[in-house]
Amino acid sequence: MENRIVIVGGNAAGVSAASAARKIDRKANITLITEESYPPYSRCGLPYVISGDISRFEDLVIFPHSYFQMMKLDLLTQTTVKYVKPNEKVVIIEDAEGKTETVSYDKLILATGAKPFIPPIRGIKKREVYTLRNIKDGRLISRQAVAGKQAVIIGAGFVGLELAHALSIRGVKTLIVEMTPQILPTLLDQDMAKKTQGIIVEKGVMIITGKAVDEIDGKEKVEEVIVGEESFDADLVIIATGVLSRTELAIQAGLTIGSTKGIVVDQKMQTTIPDIYAAGDCVESKNMITDQPTLCQLGTTAMRQGKAAGINAAGGQSVFKGVLCSAVLKAFDLEIGATGLTTNKAEKNEMKTVSGSVRGKTRAEYFPGTQEIDVKIISDTSSSRVIGAQIIGTENVAQRINMLALGIQKQVTLEELVQIDACYSPPVADSWEVVTLAAEVTLRKHQMKIS
Amino acid sequence: MENRIVIVGGNAAGVSAASAARKIDRKANITLITEESYPPYSRCGLPYVISGDISRFEDLVIFPHSYFQMMKLDLLTQTTVKYVKPNEKVVIIEDAEGKTETVSYDKLILATGAKPFIPPIRGIKKREVYTLRNIKDGRLISRQAVAGKQAVIIGAGFVGLELAHALSIRGVKTLIVEMTPQILPTLLDQDMAKKTQGIIVEKGVMIITGKAVDEIDGKEKVEEVIVGEESFDADLVIIATGVLSRTELAIQAGLTIGSTKGIVVDQKMQTTIPDIYAAGDCVESKNMITDQPTLCQLGTTAMRQGKAAGINAAGGQSVFKGVLCSAVLKAFDLEIGATGLTTNKAEKNEMKTVSGSVRGKTRAEYFPGTQEIDVKIISDTSSSRVIGAQIIGTENVAQRINMLALGIQKQVTLEELVQIDACYSPPVADSWEVVTLAAEVTLRKHQMKIS
Repeated sequence: MENRIVIVGGNAAGVSAASAARKIDRKANITLITEESYPPYSRCGLPYVISGDISRFEDLVIFPHSYFQMMKLDLLTQTTVKYVKPNEKVVIIEDAEGKTETVSYDKLILATGAKPFIPPIRGIKKREVYTLRNIKDGRLISRQAVAGKQAVIIGAGFVGLELAHALSIRGVKTLIVEMTPQILPTLLDQDMAKKTQGIIVEKGVMIITGKAVDEIDGKEKVEEVIVGEESFDADLVIIATGVLSRTELAIQAGLTIGSTKGIVVDQKMQTTIPDIYAAGDCVESKNMITDQPTLCQLGTTAMRQGKAAGINAAGGQSVFKGVLCSAVLKAFDLEIGATGLTTNKAEKNEMKTVSGSVRGKTRAEYFPGTQEIDVKIISDTSSSRVIGAQIIGTENVAQRINMLALGIQKQVTLEELVQIDACYSPPVADSWEVVTLAAEVTLRKHQMKIS
Repeated sequence: MENRIVIVGGNAAGVSAASAARKIDRKANITLITEESYPPYSRCGLPYVISGDISRFEDLVIFPHSYFQMMKLDLLTQTTVKYVKPNEKVVIIEDAEGKTETVSYDKLILATGAKPFIPPIRGIKKREVYTLRNIKDGRLISRQAVAGKQAVIIGAGFVGLELAHALSIRGVKTLIVEMTPQILPTLLDQDMAKKTQGIIVEKGVMIITGKAVDEIDGKEKVEEVIVGEESFDADLVIIATGVLSRTELAIQAGLTIGSTKGIVVDQKMQTTIPDIYAAGDCVESKNMITDQPTLCQLGTTAMRQGKAAGINAAGGQSVFKGVLCSAVLKAFDLEIGATGLTTNKAEKNEMKTVSGSVRGKTRAEYFPGTQEIDVKIISDTSSSRVIGAQIIGTENVAQRINMLALGIQKQVTLEELVQIDACYSPPVADSWEVVTLAAEVTLRKHQMKIS
C-alpha cells in the first residue's frame, strides 16, 4: 500500500514538506491542502511588488501548478480542513462550494502557518485598515498606495519597515508607530536600532517609538490616528504587529501547545500525537543557544522544518537541530541582518554578555564604491562564545550573517573568530574583514571584563 | 630601556607588525625599513589602477607618512638592509646615497616579502617584458597599455587574470599562456577552472593552457612569443608566474629555511634564532587542515602574521594558528573565490575526497537582478569534514568564502553545514542558500560512497 501523506497548508513549510516527501518516496500519495486560491507563492516578496521592484503579484508564484504535476503532488486550493480526527486518521475538508469530504492519511503534516496579530485598538475595524499576509492583502494595499496619500503603519518589524519603504517609493507619506522603545525589537539591540532609525528618518519616513496607537478615527474609513496627545491624518493604516501561530486545528486534534503558543514538536518535527507532524509558523522551535522553546516565524525556518517533516513522514530520517532565527531585510537601501540572540534576549535567559561593534568597509578603503558597514557581535561572558550578531550596511550583509550563524552553530569563541582566514581583494572585500575587527573589539572588552 | 624593534620590509606584514607592536608597547622604539620609495601601499590594488577603476597609483598608498608620525614609527624608505648580525643584534643598512649605518635591535622582524619568479625562457630579458610587483612596474605596464596593442601574459594565476582584465579594458588584445592544464591552478579544481575559462574567453581574451612559452622573440624589444608550433605577435609580455620568498637576508643570518623555501617560524612567528621573527610572503605557514608547511603568499596572511609577530615582539602574546589560503579575485565581472584545499592538493596529502557542486541564485529566483552563482564543496571522505570550497559568481562570493573558511576552521562536517540557519530576503538572498544546496549534494554523494 502506498503511504498517504496529507499536508495542511500550501506555503513554505507545506510545499517544502511535500517536495521532500516525494524525493524520499516516489510512490507515496501526497496531498497538499490550502485555503488560498493561488498556488504556493513567496509571502516575503509581497512588499517588493507594492514597491514596484517586482512587476506583478503573479510573479511571486514560485510553485506553479506544473510543479505539482511534475512532482505528482495533489494540490487542493480554496480548500479548508475543518477537522482532524487522529483516532480515525482522517481529515474533513471543505471546498470553495462548501462541499465536504473525508480524506484519510497515514501521516499528517500540519503547516497551518500564522495569521496577523490584530492589537485591540479602538476603530481598528474601519475601512482602509489592512494587514499584509497574502496576495489579496497585497493587492488591496497596492491599490491604495497612491502618491500624496498618508499612511500609518503600526509596528516597526520586518513587514512594517519593508512596507514603509514600498509606500515611500510609491509617494505615500508614511508614519510608523512602534509601541516598544525601538524599531526592529526582536532583531536588533537598541544601539543598532537607533542607527537604523536615523537613516530611515533621513529618507523621509516619520517614526514614533515607545508609544502605542490609541485609536483609529474616522467616519467609516480611516481619517486619523491618535497616538497619545497627538493625532495624525491617515488615508490608510497597516497593521504590522507580528503574527500568531494558527493552532485551531492542532488544538481541536488534541496536540500539545507550548508556552510560546506554538505546536510542540520534537527534533523530527513530530507532534505529541503519533503520525502527526507539524512545521513552520505554527510550531515552536528550539533555540540552538539557549535550548529554550521559541517562535521563529521565518520563511527559512518553515522551509527547513517542512523538509524535515516531509522526509520523516515519508519514512526517511531527518533531524531539525533548532534555530538561530537568522534574518535579513532590505529597506531604504539598507540591508539589516541579525542572527542568534540580542543582548536583551540573552539577558532574559540569564546570560551575561559582552558586545562590541565596529564600522568597517565593504571593499578596500580606496576602491570606488566602497560602503560603510556596521557589525555588532554579542558574546557570552562565561564561555566567550559568540551568541549573536547584528549587521547594518548597504551591501553584503546577508552572507556575513550566514558566516556568523555558522559560527554560532559551531560554538565559535571570540578567540577563534578573530583568527578567521578571510579572503581579500580590493573590489570585493577589505583587507581586514569587518567581522574580524568587531570580534577583536569584543574580545578586548571580554578580556578586560574577566581580568 | 625602551624595546628596540626593527622591521625589515614596509608592506602588508611589516606595517601590520609595526602597528600591532605600537599598540602593545607605547614606548617602544620601532623602525620600519623599506627599499621602496613610496610609503606602504596596497599591492593588490595595482591591476585596478591599470584598469582605470582607481585613478592614480598614489591612491594605493594606504599608510601615508602622517600615519607613521601619528603612530610614532620611524619609516626609512629607499633603504636596504645589507646584513643581519644576530650575535651582535644589529642590522647594517644602506640608504639611497650608499651611506651605510649600523642599527641595533632587541627584536627583529623580517618581512622581506617575495619577488616575481622569472621562468627560464629564452628572450625573457628583452625590452617590454614586465612583471607586476610594485608601483614602478605598474606605471611601466600602464604606459604600454595602449588600445590596439597586443599583450601576452605568462601565467593564469591571480595577477595574470587581473591584468588580463585590466588590459582588456584598456583595449589591449590579450593572450594568456598557462603552463599547467588549467587556469588558476592553485585556487580551483579543473571543473571550476574550465567554467571560469569559458566565461573569460567569451569576453575576448585568448587563453592557452597546458603549454609553455618557449621563446620571446624580437630584435631588442618583444615582437613575438613562441608557444609550441605557434607564434603570436606581442607588443608587450607580462610575467605572472608567481613569486618566490625573499630569504637572502634570512639565509645570511643563519635562519632555517623550510622545504617550501620559506623561512621556518613557529606559531608565535619566531624564527629559529632568538629575537628574530618573520612574517608574510617570506615565511612558510602551516595549513590548518593538513598541518603541513605551505606557502600562502597573500596580503591577508601577511597582515595576520605581521600582527602576531608585532604583538609578540613587543612583549604581548599572540598565536597564529595557520592558513586556509582563502582568496578571492575579481576579473571580467566575475568574482572567483576559494578556501581550504583543492581536490588536487587534498589528494597530494593522501586524503580521499568527495565533492559536489551546484548552481544557485544570489537573490530570490523572481527578484530582478538575481545572478547565478556556482558553489563547489570538497569534503574528506573519512570524516565528512569540509576541507575546501570554490565559488564563481558575479556578486557575493567573498563572504560565502569567509563563511566556509570559518566552517573549515571549526571543522564543520557536511551534516552540520546542511543545517546552517541562513537568512533570506528576496532582494539579497535566495530562500535556500546555495552553500546549503552544495553541501546537500556533496553529502548525498558522501553517503553513497561510504554505504
